[in-house]
Amino acid sequence: MSHNTFGHLFRVTTWGESHGPALGAVVDGCPPGIALTAAEIQSFLDKRKPGQSRFVTQRREPDEVEILSGVFEDERTGGPVTTGTPISLMIRNVDQRSKDYSDIRDKFRPGHADFTYDAKYGVRDYRGGGRSSARETAARVAAGAVARKVIPGVTIRGAMVQMGPHKIDRANWDWEQVNENPFFCPDAKAAALWEDYLDGIRKAGSSIGAVIEVVAEGVPAGWGAPLYGKLDQDIAAALMAINAVKGVEIGAGFASAELTGEENADEIYAGGNHEPEFRSNHAGGILGGISSGQPVVARFAVKPTSSILTPRHTIDKSGAETEILTKGRHDPCVGIRAVPVGEAMLAIVLADHFLRHRGQTGR
Amino acid sequence: MSHNTFGHLFRVTTWGESHGPALGAVVDGCPPGIALTAAEIQSFLDKRKPGQSRFVTQRREPDEVEILSGVFEDERTGGPVTTGTPISLMIRNVDQRSKDYSDIRDKFRPGHADFTYDAKYGVRDYRGGGRSSARETAARVAAGAVARKVIPGVTIRGAMVQMGPHKIDRANWDWEQVNENPFFCPDAKAAALWEDYLDGIRKAGSSIGAVIEVVAEGVPAGWGAPLYGKLDQDIAAALMAINAVKGVEIGAGFASAELTGEENADEIYAGGNHEPEFRSNHAGGILGGISSGQPVVARFAVKPTSSILTPRHTIDKSGAETEILTKGRHDPCVGIRAVPVGEAMLAIVLADHFLRHRGQTGR
Amino acid sequence: MSHNTFGHLFRVTTWGESHGPALGAVVDGCPPGIALTAAEIQSFLDKRKPGQSRFVTQRREPDEVEILSGVFEDERTGGPVTTGTPISLMIRNVDQRSKDYSDIRDKFRPGHADFTYDAKYGVRDYRGGGRSSARETAARVAAGAVARKVIPGVTIRGAMVQMGPHKIDRANWDWEQVNENPFFCPDAKAAALWEDYLDGIRKAGSSIGAVIEVVAEGVPAGWGAPLYGKLDQDIAAALMAINAVKGVEIGAGFASAELTGEENADEIYAGGNHEPEFRSNHAGGILGGISSGQPVVARFAVKPTSSILTPRHTIDKSGAETEILTKGRHDPCVGIRAVPVGEAMLAIVLADHFLRHRGQTGR
Amino acid sequence: MSHNTFGHLFRVTTWGESHGPALGAVVDGCPPGIALTAAEIQSFLDKRKPGQSRFVTQRREPDEVEILSGVFEDERTGGPVTTGTPISLMIRNVDQRSKDYSDIRDKFRPGHADFTYDAKYGVRDYRGGGRSSARETAARVAAGAVARKVIPGVTIRGAMVQMGPHKIDRANWDWEQVNENPFFCPDAKAAALWEDYLDGIRKAGSSIGAVIEVVAEGVPAGWGAPLYGKLDQDIAAALMAINAVKGVEIGAGFASAELTGEENADEIYAGGNHEPEFRSNHAGGILGGISSGQPVVARFAVKPTSSILTPRHTIDKSGAETEILTKGRHDPCVGIRAVPVGEAMLAIVLADHFLRHRGQTGR
Repeated sequence: MSHNTFGHLFRVTTWGESHGPALGAVVDGCPPGIALTAAEIQSFLDKRKPGQSRFVTQRREPDEVEILSGVFEDERTGGPVTTGTPISLMIRNVDQRSKDYSDIRDKFRPGHADFTYDAKYGVRDYRGGGRSSARETAARVAAGAVARKVIPGVTIRGAMVQMGPHKIDRANWDWEQVNENPFFCPDAKAAALWEDYLDGIRKAGSSIGAVIEVVAEGVPAGWGAPLYGKLDQDIAAALMAINAVKGVEIGAGFASAELTGEENADEIYAGGNHEPEFRSNHAGGILGGISSGQPVVARFAVKPTSSILTPRHTIDKSGAETEILTKGRHDPCVGIRAVPVGEAMLAIVLADHFLRHRGQTGR
Repeated sequence: MSHNTFGHLFRVTTWGESHGPALGAVVDGCPPGIALTAAEIQSFLDKRKPGQSRFVTQRREPDEVEILSGVFEDERTGGPVTTGTPISLMIRNVDQRSKDYSDIRDKFRPGHADFTYDAKYGVRDYRGGGRSSARETAARVAAGAVARKVIPGVTIRGAMVQMGPHKIDRANWDWEQVNENPFFCPDAKAAALWEDYLDGIRKAGSSIGAVIEVVAEGVPAGWGAPLYGKLDQDIAAALMAINAVKGVEIGAGFASAELTGEENADEIYAGGNHEPEFRSNHAGGILGGISSGQPVVARFAVKPTSSILTPRHTIDKSGAETEILTKGRHDPCVGIRAVPVGEAMLAIVLADHFLRHRGQTGR
Repeated sequence: MSHNTFGHLFRVTTWGESHGPALGAVVDGCPPGIALTAAEIQSFLDKRKPGQSRFVTQRREPDEVEILSGVFEDERTGGPVTTGTPISLMIRNVDQRSKDYSDIRDKFRPGHADFTYDAKYGVRDYRGGGRSSARETAARVAAGAVARKVIPGVTIRGAMVQMGPHKIDRANWDWEQVNENPFFCPDAKAAALWEDYLDGIRKAGSSIGAVIEVVAEGVPAGWGAPLYGKLDQDIAAALMAINAVKGVEIGAGFASAELTGEENADEIYAGGNHEPEFRSNHAGGILGGISSGQPVVARFAVKPTSSILTPRHTIDKSGAETEILTKGRHDPCVGIRAVPVGEAMLAIVLADHFLRHRGQTGR
Repeated sequence: MSHNTFGHLFRVTTWGESHGPALGAVVDGCPPGIALTAAEIQSFLDKRKPGQSRFVTQRREPDEVEILSGVFEDERTGGPVTTGTPISLMIRNVDQRSKDYSDIRDKFRPGHADFTYDAKYGVRDYRGGGRSSARETAARVAAGAVARKVIPGVTIRGAMVQMGPHKIDRANWDWEQVNENPFFCPDAKAAALWEDYLDGIRKAGSSIGAVIEVVAEGVPAGWGAPLYGKLDQDIAAALMAINAVKGVEIGAGFASAELTGEENADEIYAGGNHEPEFRSNHAGGILGGISSGQPVVARFAVKPTSSILTPRHTIDKSGAETEILTKGRHDPCVGIRAVPVGEAMLAIVLADHFLRHRGQTGR
């Protein structure tokens, strides 16, 4: 049992606060002999990094990762490989500007963890939200980059499929588009519309929610473990553990409530190599908690950033009523930066289940 | 790490197959000195028991629970109390009728775990779905009854809020109604409509999905643990671990994607006793993974029962194409019996978090 | 975290009290496809069973094991094989004679867990020691029998090497002898001497301690995981978790404190197949927490049975001083029956580490 | 399950290699509101630090600890307190001198983990033993310093009680002496003798084993959890997890094998406040896996340092026979620096069990 560790055989422990000296992750259980460089991890951090467009927080953090342990020169290639020992990853905080946050020292921001941390611990690092800040997700993204290397046959991608009331048109889905707009949107047309929409939100000092879809292709049949080590259960936990996430669904998800058994059945045909060929994927690639070989598909809902420029009613630590308005550097749609985080969490779950499956079955 | 255990300080391990001699749960970590009788557990099992209306499977199982360990006579009251040692709960299977299932020995039922268990293990108890049968949820309900006694100040209730396309009218919500209809529906008017609707589904040999809402009132502020021991994360895992569940949401859930920060903020006012008074509950009682003192509200989507009377296309173990139609005794809306299971899982999560919180903070 | 579970990928949860209706174990994570019958498990239980000689408790328990889940007919052989799902093992208690124990309801027996269970839980099943009774070890032996089948290339054997002050002569070691005397003694000469010695102890209503050695041959190099998943660490935990054990050592153990670096070094020579050939085994088959391919050798010290016929000074629950003398059916040397238990615990640790190693490295 | 994490509610994950840039520990689950400064942690690190006498390695490491997360200013005192979030502790490596170790790149040092790491992982950081170096224990000592603050009523001390064949005279035991000699020896007379003895060992380029005793006073009755969360089981695991440890015993330990039931019984008398007064402590403060309120007493045997100046026979990575002699800076008696490490591990176990006990029982 642990408060700040995720996973079992592939296991990630994160630490650090938004305005402390650094944050990091310890990745334990990574198989040995995997080529791994800081540059590879950095490429994923760069996707999540703040300040890359006007639609995300303007905090200037290079998010440079250091590998402090767990890799060593391979005697054959000379390049760095994992050694099977814990991989310690650290990212220094650079642009803290703690003064921005003095107001939240004594007031509880609605929608934030201020009140609950106080209720639980009686003390909290209020600077930038401390441990509850989405800044911690940088550590997840770094760990997720390691996880991807554990399952090289699996391709994990994420996209934003809804911003506020505006959903993408799935007929327009083009993975190439995802890196062509500031929203990780796979529908170029929707992205153009969202740009205007989010500019309006941003200028109003407001914020808006979003829905992200993450997909893993290449997962073989057999990963996952009934009944409380289910693959979908761990994906649900992983995604719900991301800041601001309020819902998770697999495959048809909530829409399956409206389907009949006939509609929902993913009928099976004979594919090549005695493999089944499913002609639909309402199951999202998971049956009975175990992967079916189809793409694993999950979606999660991200609530609007709680920090907004419109004053909200609240109380202070003495219990007195007051108002608060959050002036810091924030994201009008925190869902944007949740895309690489969702990918990372899915990668961590899959790497863990790959090792667990291999442990129990030898395959 | 475990495949068949849920929870940490309050910890439930289940075992058993649909058509084996018995199934059960071992509840470890239960605090000592709690009065506990088989009759109390039985009352919850009776809610989930098959054969109670024409809308659920007609398998005749008394689901009688035996307590095999972990309780002993209290020297003060003479009645049975928990001793702090593992509580072993067993339920004998009585009405197995294995012959009904001979057809599924070699064919993979679409939507069921047949194919994936085979892919993972190479062997499976195909009788009635074996380990993947919803029959296992009896063990959860029994364990959940114990969990409730660990947190006596917390009231946990569940209700079906949507059947197929038909949602309840939340203005009609009346908890009293939940036990007055076969659907655990809190809206008497909706229940009447659902009765006709589900009769149609049932007579057609079809099935339909549903959405369940579970609510815990009386949870104090402070339970849960950032960042990977979040209360909502564990609820998501617990509910997604229920058979046929495809989505989970907390508070406003997926609807929060469409909200602005202003709309989503649960503003805080001064309540009595220096307690905050929230005037809305989009957060579903959880902020930053920690309970806020508001009711904890979660919903989950249950897909339609995969066993239907309309033939579906599939393959057999040799890879050859064939059709299958499931004749066994099944639920036209498996979501109905998921209501007490969802309550049980929520109770288990909360009991676990209560003990974890008390361990770390002494409160 | 758990109170009554041991192991990680191969994972055993036990439950039950000495005088409850039954006791059992749930074995989770067992690989699928392993032939397993109750008879095989029974053969190990029969070694531990009470009443087999005048030197062990005369309680008459058949210790018959039932397999309640987790095995199913193999389609090729028709015989029962593991399915990868939890294996529930149950042993009914038959000969409880609770009246023998009425005296210990209110008095704390020195050396027993009476006082500490009361201090911790405020309530305890005092009949026969309840949960703290060595009777629970039947469940471990049953689980250990399953563990052995997970690592078929490994031979695990145990022997008593010291009874009271009398050590065996290691030059006389003959594994065949172990089943020829009531002490699992590998030295026929020592066994003869012990018989007289223990008769004296027994007739005096006294008891005596012992040292057990357990050996696993055929463990390949590479099992174990630095730094807190060390093989020797887990063996130490497993053996110390046996009732009445007060010390554990690996290889040269405490004697290594008196050795110089030159003496202690297990020098390495070239064996066949590029394998190392160690010419001594002070390390007990474990270096840096990882198996070296040499036999894994551990010893553990078992204190004398605390239940003796000589009155001992104690207090009762009110705190008043009194005397106690334990009349029940007990073992003059509880170390005897600890031999199969030690083997079982070693088997469980090795099965777990085999799966963990395979998970992380794929070998 | 984890390879590099120890503990459950109080949970320590360590990372780092001997010659990497740094090593560290993440302490998760520490209760909030505990005053904690780097200086306090440093005082324990200074006890373990290399280079403090001619009897320990001359590697010059300041072992300065940085606290990177998990503490924040207390609003009442202004001083740093724990916040309940993970405490990340880092120690930079300074004096690596990697050239000393080039010889061990291709040869397996007898008694070291070289061969087994290679067998397991196929790659290892050979510089200074990499992850298997005792240098990692600095991280444990740092984490142990935090653990002590979690259980302020408990006093944890350690002493060397045997060096090679030379045991202390327990009649001379004086805790004050422990800090007066370079051996943490509580017997001034023995310490004087050991000084000459170890000088001989050191000058011969040899090494010698030792036995350490660690004692915790002030542990209340009730900590620990039957049957696989036993306090003695976790102590055994914790101490066996220390580099070079080959045996662990509690209370009378291996000597209890020679005792009769009468001798071994710790008789109980009426103490003050309805507390029991034990007149002996063969149990080492633990009965049935639960603390009795007596001092918790454990001992562990440390083998002689494997790195010695006398050449030993071994093989290289190609399997060819060769000799090796270790010239690096090493400890003639690595048991010396194991004293603060043993204290730290005992503190970690007790802090964990305190939180676990409080979680389950509320006390």
